[in-house]
Amino acid sequence: MNDRLQAYMEAHKKEHIEELKAYLRIPSISAVSEHKADIVRCAEWTAEALRQAGIENVEILPTGGHPVVYGEWLHAEGKPTVLIYGHYDVQPAEPLELWSSPPFEPEIRDGKLFGRGTTDDKGQLFLHIKAAEAYLRTTGSLPVNVKFCIEGEEEVASLHLPPFVEAHKEKLRADIVTLSDTSLHEVGKPALLYGLRGLAGFEIAVEGAGSDLHSGLFGGGVPNPIHALSQLLASFHDADGRVAVEGFYDKVTPLSVVEREAFKEVEPEAEQIRNELALSELYGEAGYTFLERVNARPTLEITSVSGGFQGEGIKPIIPNKAVAKIACRLVSAQVPDEIMDCVERHIQRHKPVGVKVSLNRHLRGNPFITPIDHPAMTAAALAYEDVYGTAPVYKRGGGSIPIVEVFGRLLNAPVVMLGFGLPGENLHAPDEHFHLDNFDKGLLTICRYWEKIGRI
Amino acid sequence: MNDRLQAYMEAHKKEHIEELKAYLRIPSISAVSEHKADIVRCAEWTAEALRQAGIENVEILPTGGHPVVYGEWLHAEGKPTVLIYGHYDVQPAEPLELWSSPPFEPEIRDGKLFGRGTTDDKGQLFLHIKAAEAYLRTTGSLPVNVKFCIEGEEEVASLHLPPFVEAHKEKLRADIVTLSDTSLHEVGKPALLYGLRGLAGFEIAVEGAGSDLHSGLFGGGVPNPIHALSQLLASFHDADGRVAVEGFYDKVTPLSVVEREAFKEVEPEAEQIRNELALSELYGEAGYTFLERVNARPTLEITSVSGGFQGEGIKPIIPNKAVAKIACRLVSAQVPDEIMDCVERHIQRHKPVGVKVSLNRHLRGNPFITPIDHPAMTAAALAYEDVYGTAPVYKRGGGSIPIVEVFGRLLNAPVVMLGFGLPGENLHAPDEHFHLDNFDKGLLTICRYWEKIGRI
Repeated sequence: MNDRLQAYMEAHKKEHIEELKAYLRIPSISAVSEHKADIVRCAEWTAEALRQAGIENVEILPTGGHPVVYGEWLHAEGKPTVLIYGHYDVQPAEPLELWSSPPFEPEIRDGKLFGRGTTDDKGQLFLHIKAAEAYLRTTGSLPVNVKFCIEGEEEVASLHLPPFVEAHKEKLRADIVTLSDTSLHEVGKPALLYGLRGLAGFEIAVEGAGSDLHSGLFGGGVPNPIHALSQLLASFHDADGRVAVEGFYDKVTPLSVVEREAFKEVEPEAEQIRNELALSELYGEAGYTFLERVNARPTLEITSVSGGFQGEGIKPIIPNKAVAKIACRLVSAQVPDEIMDCVERHIQRHKPVGVKVSLNRHLRGNPFITPIDHPAMTAAALAYEDVYGTAPVYKRGGGSIPIVEVFGRLLNAPVVMLGFGLPGENLHAPDEHFHLDNFDKGLLTICRYWEKIGRI
Repeated sequence: MNDRLQAYMEAHKKEHIEELKAYLRIPSISAVSEHKADIVRCAEWTAEALRQAGIENVEILPTGGHPVVYGEWLHAEGKPTVLIYGHYDVQPAEPLELWSSPPFEPEIRDGKLFGRGTTDDKGQLFLHIKAAEAYLRTTGSLPVNVKFCIEGEEEVASLHLPPFVEAHKEKLRADIVTLSDTSLHEVGKPALLYGLRGLAGFEIAVEGAGSDLHSGLFGGGVPNPIHALSQLLASFHDADGRVAVEGFYDKVTPLSVVEREAFKEVEPEAEQIRNELALSELYGEAGYTFLERVNARPTLEITSVSGGFQGEGIKPIIPNKAVAKIACRLVSAQVPDEIMDCVERHIQRHKPVGVKVSLNRHLRGNPFITPIDHPAMTAAALAYEDVYGTAPVYKRGGGSIPIVEVFGRLLNAPVVMLGFGLPGENLHAPDEHFHLDNFDKGLLTICRYWEKIGRI
C-alpha cells in the first residue's frame, strides 16, 4: 500500500463518516411496504456515491422487487475482475423503545457508530465504495477490475436477485465475488467464513370459526385456533431439542472428526455466552456444542406468533385466526422447498380437529460452502494479516446470505466473505452498531486484498 | 299496562333511538387507557339521561377505576326496591376492518341497530332508563322503588365494583337486583338465565435472552421463548379436550340427570351451530354436548398470543419474550384464585429449560346460580309471557358477569337477568347489533315486570 493512499484515508476520515451517517439516515426497511419510497431514495443515494467514487456506467436496474444498483470500473487490463456485492436495505428497527439513540439518527459513542444498518450492511458496503474512491483519486486506477452489484432485498431473503443474476450473467461475470456482511472472530482477530446455513422461511396460519367468538358464550364448545397452533408448534421439537419433523435431517451430512476439531478451536466459553445473552442456560440439540448447533446443525425457529386481541388488557374472545412465522436454518444438502414439504406433511399428520391450517412459503436460501484453499481466499487471509497483524481463523456461519450461494452457483466463481463487523454488534436488534476502528482497518484491508488479487 | 304508557312509547320511539345513537357514539372502551376521557364523558352522559328521566339524587361516584353512576326513585311506599345494574363501558372494536359500518357510528339496517355496545350493554341498559322515564312522564310515579347502579368496568371484569358495593351496601340495599345484559333464547322466545360461569383471567409471560437475537447467529443454540410458551400452552389440554391442569376439576359438581335432561330441551342442532359459525367441526371436552360444554362445564381458553416481530414479512429473530392471555370459565364451587394457583403449579411442573415464566393475575369472577322459583323470577317469567306471548325457557349461561355473583352475595338479594339480546348479535365481535323489535318489546317487558314486582 502506498503512503499517499493511507494519507488520503486519514485526511478524509471525518468526511467519510459524515457521508456514511447520511446513508444511514435513510430508513430503507425492505420488509415494510410503506418504506418503498425510502428504498428508492436509498438506491439513488448508493448510485450517486458510486459515481462520485469514479465508478463508471452506474445504473439503477429494476427487479421484480426493489432495484439493484450496478456500476463498474474495468480498465485493469489482464487483471481479474472482482464483483462486489452488498445490500442497501436494512431490518425493521422495532422494538423502538429499546434503542439508546434513535435507529435512523446515527450517533458515535465510545468509538462505535450506532444506528440501523451500521454493520448490516451499509457501513460495511460503504467501505468498498470509499476504498475504490481513495484508490482512484490517489493513483488514477485500481489494481483489479471491479463490478458493484448492490441490492435492496437482502433482509427479505433476496427474493428477486437470483432471477436478476440469471438474466444479467454476462454483465455480472467475474472471477471472484466479494462481500463484507459478516464479522471478525473477535476484537483484533479476523475470520474467514467458509460456510453459511441456508434458510426456509414460512408462515403457518390456523383458522377456526368465521369470526372472533365470545369466550364465555362459546368457550369449551368450539376449536380454538391458538390451542391448535400451540399444539402444532409444540410438536416441531422433541424433548432433546431435535427437530421432530419427519425427513428434516435426511440430507444433513454428519460432522466429521476433523470439522469437530476445528470447531473446538474457536468454541466460545458457554459461561461467557450465557452472561452476554443474560440467559440462565443455553439450550439446543443434544449431543452438540453451542458453536456446532448455531453454525453446522440445522434448526427450526419460531420467529413470531400472533393471535387474538393484541392491545392492552384481556379481551375474552376465541380468535378466528392465529399465525406463526418460522425460519429454518439449513446445512449440507438440505433444500428449502423439500424442508417446507416435510413441514407440510408433518402438519397433515398432526392436523388439529375442526380448524383449517395453511402454510405460506416466504423465503428460500441454499446452504453454502467455499473451498478454503482457493487463491482468492489466500489473498483475503494475507490482506487481513497485513492490516490486523494476525492470521484469520476459518469458520462457518450460522446466518444465511442466500445470494452467496446463488452467486457462487450462477457465476461459477468463489465467494470471499471479507467481514469487518464484530459479534455483539446487535445486527437485527436494538442498538446495532459498528466499531469505527474496523472502519479504518476495513478500508485498508480491502485495498490490500485488491492488490493481492491483482497479483494472482 | 295502561294505554297511555304504550302510546307514549310509540310516540317517542324515533326520539329514543336517536338518543341511544348519541350514547353509542361515545367510544367508552374500558380496556384501553387512552379512552379514559371517553369513559368519563360516557358516565356524564348516563347521569344526565337518568336526571332527564326523572331519577333523583343522581351522582357520579368514584371507584378505584372508572366511576359508577348512581340514581334512585324511592317514592313507592311499601313496595319492593329493585336495583337496576348495567354498564356503560364497551369492548374494544378491533379488528376494525371487519365491521360493515364503523363501530362508533351506529346505523340501522334491516331492523337492526349496528354498533359497538348496541346489545352489550348500552342498548339494553338504555331500556330501563327509558322505561322509568315513560312511566314517570305518563303516570307521575313508578310501581316499585328503583335504584340505578351503572358501572364502567364490566368489560374488564368489574375489578373495582366489589369493594364499591361493599362500601355502599346501605345505599345499594334492595330486595331484587335486575339487569339486562343477556339474550333471549331465540327470536320470539325469551329465556331466564339461572346460572353463569365464573372467570379467571391471567397472562403468562415467557422470557429468554436479554434482547431479541438473530435467528441465523443464535438459532438452535439458545432457548426460544415462543417454543417454550407453545409447549406450555399445548400442555394445558389433553387429547380429549379436557383441561390437563391438575386440580382444575376438583370443585366441579357433576351434572345431575335432571340438569342434563333440562339441557336436552334447549340443546341446539350441532349442524346449525357449525353452519352459523362457519366451522367444519365442533370441538370440546369428550362426553358432553355443545350446550353442556359452553354453559355448565369449565374451560380454559387462550384468548391471545403474541411474540416476535408483529409487522408484515418475516423478521428472522428469536424474540426475548412471548406472552399469552388466558380466560378460564368456571362452574360450581371453582374459585378463580385457586384455579390460578393450579395453573401456577402446572407451570412449575412443566417449566421449559432456560426461560423465566411468570403468571400475572388479571380477572376474577365467581360462578353463580339463582333459585329459579323465587317470586321475582316468576314475575319476570310472567312479564316476558305477557309481551312475547310465550313462556321463557330456563337456561344457564356460559359467559361471566362477575358482578351478578357479587350483588347476590353482598346484598343478599336474588338477581334477575332480564335479557333482550339475541344469540348471534356479535357481542365482543365486529358488527355487534341489536334487533329493534326487542327494543320495543324490552321497554314493555320492563314496565310489566315492575308492575308484577309491585304486587309481590
